[in-house]
Amino acid sequence: MWEKVYQKIDELYDRMVEDRRYLHQYPELSFEEKETSNFICRRYDELGIPYKSNIGGYGLVAKIEGGKPGKTVALRADFDALPIQEENDVPYKSKADGVMHACGHDGHTATLLAVAEAVKEFQDELEGTMVFIHQPAEEYAPGGAKPMIEDGALDGVDAVFGTHLWATTPLHTIEITKDAFMAGTDRFEIIFKGKGGHGAMPHQTKDPVVMTGQAIVELQQIISRRIDPLEPAVLTIGVIESGEAFNVIPDTATLKGTVRYLNKDVQEQIIDEMHKVLKGITDSYGAEYELDYFKGYPPVINHDRETDFYLEGGTEIPGIDTVTDVPPVMGGEDFAYYLEERPGTYFFTGANIEGHDYPHHHPKFNINEKALPIAAKALLHGYKKYQKA
Amino acid sequence: MWEKVYQKIDELYDRMVEDRRYLHQYPELSFEEKETSNFICRRYDELGIPYKSNIGGYGLVAKIEGGKPGKTVALRADFDALPIQEENDVPYKSKADGVMHACGHDGHTATLLAVAEAVKEFQDELEGTMVFIHQPAEEYAPGGAKPMIEDGALDGVDAVFGTHLWATTPLHTIEITKDAFMAGTDRFEIIFKGKGGHGAMPHQTKDPVVMTGQAIVELQQIISRRIDPLEPAVLTIGVIESGEAFNVIPDTATLKGTVRYLNKDVQEQIIDEMHKVLKGITDSYGAEYELDYFKGYPPVINHDRETDFYLEGGTEIPGIDTVTDVPPVMGGEDFAYYLEERPGTYFFTGANIEGHDYPHHHPKFNINEKALPIAAKALLHGYKKYQKA
Amino acid sequence: MWEKVYQKIDELYDRMVEDRRYLHQYPELSFEEKETSNFICRRYDELGIPYKSNIGGYGLVAKIEGGKPGKTVALRADFDALPIQEENDVPYKSKADGVMHACGHDGHTATLLAVAEAVKEFQDELEGTMVFIHQPAEEYAPGGAKPMIEDGALDGVDAVFGTHLWATTPLHTIEITKDAFMAGTDRFEIIFKGKGGHGAMPHQTKDPVVMTGQAIVELQQIISRRIDPLEPAVLTIGVIESGEAFNVIPDTATLKGTVRYLNKDVQEQIIDEMHKVLKGITDSYGAEYELDYFKGYPPVINHDRETDFYLEGGTEIPGIDTVTDVPPVMGGEDFAYYLEERPGTYFFTGANIEGHDYPHHHPKFNINEKALPIAAKALLHGYKKYQKA
Amino acid sequence: MWEKVYQKIDELYDRMVEDRRYLHQYPELSFEEKETSNFICRRYDELGIPYKSNIGGYGLVAKIEGGKPGKTVALRADFDALPIQEENDVPYKSKADGVMHACGHDGHTATLLAVAEAVKEFQDELEGTMVFIHQPAEEYAPGGAKPMIEDGALDGVDAVFGTHLWATTPLHTIEITKDAFMAGTDRFEIIFKGKGGHGAMPHQTKDPVVMTGQAIVELQQIISRRIDPLEPAVLTIGVIESGEAFNVIPDTATLKGTVRYLNKDVQEQIIDEMHKVLKGITDSYGAEYELDYFKGYPPVINHDRETDFYLEGGTEIPGIDTVTDVPPVMGGEDFAYYLEERPGTYFFTGANIEGHDYPHHHPKFNINEKALPIAAKALLHGYKKYQKA
Repeated sequence: MWEKVYQKIDELYDRMVEDRRYLHQYPELSFEEKETSNFICRRYDELGIPYKSNIGGYGLVAKIEGGKPGKTVALRADFDALPIQEENDVPYKSKADGVMHACGHDGHTATLLAVAEAVKEFQDELEGTMVFIHQPAEEYAPGGAKPMIEDGALDGVDAVFGTHLWATTPLHTIEITKDAFMAGTDRFEIIFKGKGGHGAMPHQTKDPVVMTGQAIVELQQIISRRIDPLEPAVLTIGVIESGEAFNVIPDTATLKGTVRYLNKDVQEQIIDEMHKVLKGITDSYGAEYELDYFKGYPPVINHDRETDFYLEGGTEIPGIDTVTDVPPVMGGEDFAYYLEERPGTYFFTGANIEGHDYPHHHPKFNINEKALPIAAKALLHGYKKYQKA
Repeated sequence: MWEKVYQKIDELYDRMVEDRRYLHQYPELSFEEKETSNFICRRYDELGIPYKSNIGGYGLVAKIEGGKPGKTVALRADFDALPIQEENDVPYKSKADGVMHACGHDGHTATLLAVAEAVKEFQDELEGTMVFIHQPAEEYAPGGAKPMIEDGALDGVDAVFGTHLWATTPLHTIEITKDAFMAGTDRFEIIFKGKGGHGAMPHQTKDPVVMTGQAIVELQQIISRRIDPLEPAVLTIGVIESGEAFNVIPDTATLKGTVRYLNKDVQEQIIDEMHKVLKGITDSYGAEYELDYFKGYPPVINHDRETDFYLEGGTEIPGIDTVTDVPPVMGGEDFAYYLEERPGTYFFTGANIEGHDYPHHHPKFNINEKALPIAAKALLHGYKKYQKA
Repeated sequence: MWEKVYQKIDELYDRMVEDRRYLHQYPELSFEEKETSNFICRRYDELGIPYKSNIGGYGLVAKIEGGKPGKTVALRADFDALPIQEENDVPYKSKADGVMHACGHDGHTATLLAVAEAVKEFQDELEGTMVFIHQPAEEYAPGGAKPMIEDGALDGVDAVFGTHLWATTPLHTIEITKDAFMAGTDRFEIIFKGKGGHGAMPHQTKDPVVMTGQAIVELQQIISRRIDPLEPAVLTIGVIESGEAFNVIPDTATLKGTVRYLNKDVQEQIIDEMHKVLKGITDSYGAEYELDYFKGYPPVINHDRETDFYLEGGTEIPGIDTVTDVPPVMGGEDFAYYLEERPGTYFFTGANIEGHDYPHHHPKFNINEKALPIAAKALLHGYKKYQKA
Repeated sequence: MWEKVYQKIDELYDRMVEDRRYLHQYPELSFEEKETSNFICRRYDELGIPYKSNIGGYGLVAKIEGGKPGKTVALRADFDALPIQEENDVPYKSKADGVMHACGHDGHTATLLAVAEAVKEFQDELEGTMVFIHQPAEEYAPGGAKPMIEDGALDGVDAVFGTHLWATTPLHTIEITKDAFMAGTDRFEIIFKGKGGHGAMPHQTKDPVVMTGQAIVELQQIISRRIDPLEPAVLTIGVIESGEAFNVIPDTATLKGTVRYLNKDVQEQIIDEMHKVLKGITDSYGAEYELDYFKGYPPVINHDRETDFYLEGGTEIPGIDTVTDVPPVMGGEDFAYYLEERPGTYFFTGANIEGHDYPHHHPKFNINEKALPIAAKALLHGYKKYQKA
């Protein structure tokens, strides 16, 4: 049966491109994807596949129960866009000012719809049940995965698979690794509460600018000295805001940043050490600090067996020549939540347009549409292997 | 004659209070003091004292040539106000929204007008020539003193005296010191030009936030290690601006601050060392910096002989019990420019209202009007002593 | 045949223990292992196995040519001891004052001798040629492996295997990983050349102590900000020496430390960044630095295929229950040089004595002698698998 | 009478030179000046002036009671030498290996002896009582002044004067200032008590080297940000000792340094802030510190009236052309203790040899012997003025 499904996928190529380009022209920001959700509903209506909408927001779960017994396996595609002004000169350029599918979620959605359409045709021959999770709001923590799961998206599901079209990876290639594949991504805000005063009289103040200087320097030592050197981690301060007048020492300074990690123990350790460093600095000045630490997406931890479906068996997928066991990526992804609940794996499907090497979230980002049927088959591969496992 | 002048000053007390309160109600910001200037002109017109207006802006120079030969000595009062919303509940409260005479320049002006009126009456008996410099824009560098001097305000002048009503010093007290009395006050802006990028991939960037942290720490070592410990100096960073998104390493960081010093060699040394520190940091990252260093007012350097008129002879002034030889003040004052050109001295005349101890530039700042005639006599004292010196 | 060899190994248990304990009592420091080398020669003489001594120092290479054709595979054991005073209370305690086999090389040697003795008996049945590399001076860079290789130790050899008895890993366990298994270990010495002077007059000096403070802080940022967060690396300063009198600013400061890395590109990058950081600091003071960077052992990079002999097939070894794919270890090992020249792999053989958990290089370090026959069989396993590969 | 005394001083020039050169050849270290003390005793015996020896150690107090009533005024000279190997090529070069009068105390002693001899001749005409304090151990805190005072050296004394021959100040010049003239000089030792370990595993340690780096940087901020910028102060770390092996993180690090200040409030504030900084750093690591802070000599605070004897009246002294009101000196001097107990002043008497400009404590230090009679008259000047005051 799978050969026929794969062939059907290939026949649906134009459809996939059409869907993807339509979505590309009408992108919607995270948590605002109402029309995108409606579009997907209409397509499932056309296909005659039952679904539930408004799952954990604008999420949608469709289901094809196969004619043969088997396991229930979910495939997931996300569908939100980014606050970026497109700079590509293409006929299907975004029509929404300042909003763009600059991460390929348009392609993810088109791919999953094609999978549904292809499989629907062979429903009777299908072993098990295939669940289609169309998820909103991947780009903006706390994200759409968590509320969809809380709203039942994984109920009855045995395993889950997902892929990301990856614009800097060559076509015909899968990138994946066991264990941590993508980083936990947290956000923090530090406020130093000192005591301002005249710029000429620092001794009468508790200068939050000096505290900021020390904090920038010392917080890095958490990474270089206080956590296991074998544990990748990043602590970046992206924003500093302090003061209004050049000759006045301000009362406070605010620092905003992100922490990336692959291991939850390391996350806890970093939080703990941040408090120690900040307390040490502010105690020494008789000042105070606030650390508002917001835990974002956990790391994407791929499960061993399901990852081996690709690492060892990935080249069985039509269109895949190469499977690369890559080091983890320090970016995050809320697919992590599905993998905390169910076995499964997450991987990148190469979608590079030769000579057009713009990274994700770039105004000139684009994906190679030839990757769409490959991604479709790669998702089906996980389903297929899991039935036999 | 001086006894009679002093007595006349006392008789002019109500007039001084009236002038001061009028000016207090109609304050004008630096470089915008048109009506204040007109007011002063009118008063000199009434007194029949010749003057030139529009000297170096809204400045005004009046002159009383005495009947007896002698030296030409200038007395100076500044007349601009500050961008502060008054919070005093007084009948003569500022009528200008967000503008306030929160530094006593209203009192300086009223004082100098009374001096002119009193001396005018005894013009024939006066030895030498008394020059009245009414200066705008003391509060905002590059200030009003420099353009007034360039426009001839000191032409023919042998010496110059000035005082500041000082709200935190008790009545009947003069504070003064030889040599450096008030600090040189400079402004700087540093821009670190790094290379931004993804917050999770610091190694692909040249992180200006980390440069900022090092700069805050190392610039302080100029003060603590690189200049003579006997030379007071302050380097304060009042503003840091860097980054927009918590998870993006920015391209640049901007720091704004002030330098205070009492000795021009130290000023040059600090500038030189700042370049060395910033170059060291940015070279180590392959990044670049800009240091835009704006030299503000130089230090107020009091001349020895003229300062001794007060240090040794100050208690001869009616109303002055105490003369204190104080350490320098790290605030600045563009009276410095006059003292670079001519002998003279600058001092504080105590104007504290008991129980109302708000510092200069505070929304509740106020002066004790009883200090006005004392300040008038203290200025005259300099004139008188200089004639004999 | 291998079953018989394994059985012979078991029969040789007492011999192994005897040899190990003898060596334990007569330890010799790196590059001084003359008697140890003589002992090994004598044993090969007794066994009638041909060997060459004085290879690259006190090294020794023995060889058994099998009766059947096959590949030439080397097994390596190191035999130097450490400058540590033993604190174990055992009958075979070190008799050399301040010298101790605190890293298990006595066991390595005893194991390899038993392998030779066992295989010798079945020489006719042996496929290929087994080479025994007894290496001195592993503990002290530049080490013994490099000169042995330069002196021909790997001539004609197709592959090489080695193991380390590991005192904190349970018996019956192998620890190994593909790619980087042990770190590159470098040594550096930094000298800051400032200008000393009176402790009360820092402005007349170029204070190397302040440079030291900045260097400690900034060098860590190489690890946390300038190299890929996925690349484990450590930069540790173990020694600071500066100054003689509390009230005199010294001319120089010396820092000694180590760098650990798993990837040679990272090594080069760290050296380059160290120069940038040190130049930035010293330029900012008009001072100078020397960085004497000594490249020590490269990382131990295990080859994929040979590592899979253990990762996938390791439990075939009698006595091995568990093979763990471990993260790399930040310690170093000059086995790295063999793996730069030939395929092969390096692994840890568990040798923990329950309840006696002292780490390597500790005065109470000890190994479980039951691990000796297991390690012997584990080395033979590499040989055996490689013949078939 | 004073003219005759001054003339007698001039006649004693050869004697002074002889005494000074004798002492120069037989220098003794602080607290070991037994023979020097004996030499002084013998000279007083010869002069027939009563004295008490062994006052607070090797100290000696002689006394000439004048024939006329008046006040009791002490003159002080110190007599210890330094652990320096002389490099001058002079006939009277030090005969003690590694010990040298490299600070002019030989000259101080010769001067005071000549004063005694000259005054003795005119004892009947002398108003008041002249006390001669010959003090050991000025160079090494806790010094000789304190125990001499505790042992009664100032009993009955109304005022005290002292001078230092100053090798870098021109002949015929006195340098002095009111209030703080020389700095308070303290010593400290900091021990960071962390937890050492393997250089490759920093996360398992509490690295005292990293704490040292932070401390060096942050302690300087006490000087630059936490004390009044108008208060001169220095905090210098002269010694760092940490670690023995380049690849081992040590358990502890030791820093030794000095603090200089002119104001005892600043001293207390610095100690307090040092504790805050060190506690902040070590708390942030879960480590501990010890701060052993030893208060050395307090600042030399000259009394106003007695200082004016020199500032205003110093050029009355035969041989003095110039009196300079100098900024304070950051070096220390235990004359401070006398001035805590009695009115008086301390000043420098110029003793430069033109073209031989080596500073105090230099192996080529030397004084111009022509300064000896000038210093003698300058001390007498204080005595004389005080009788009239």
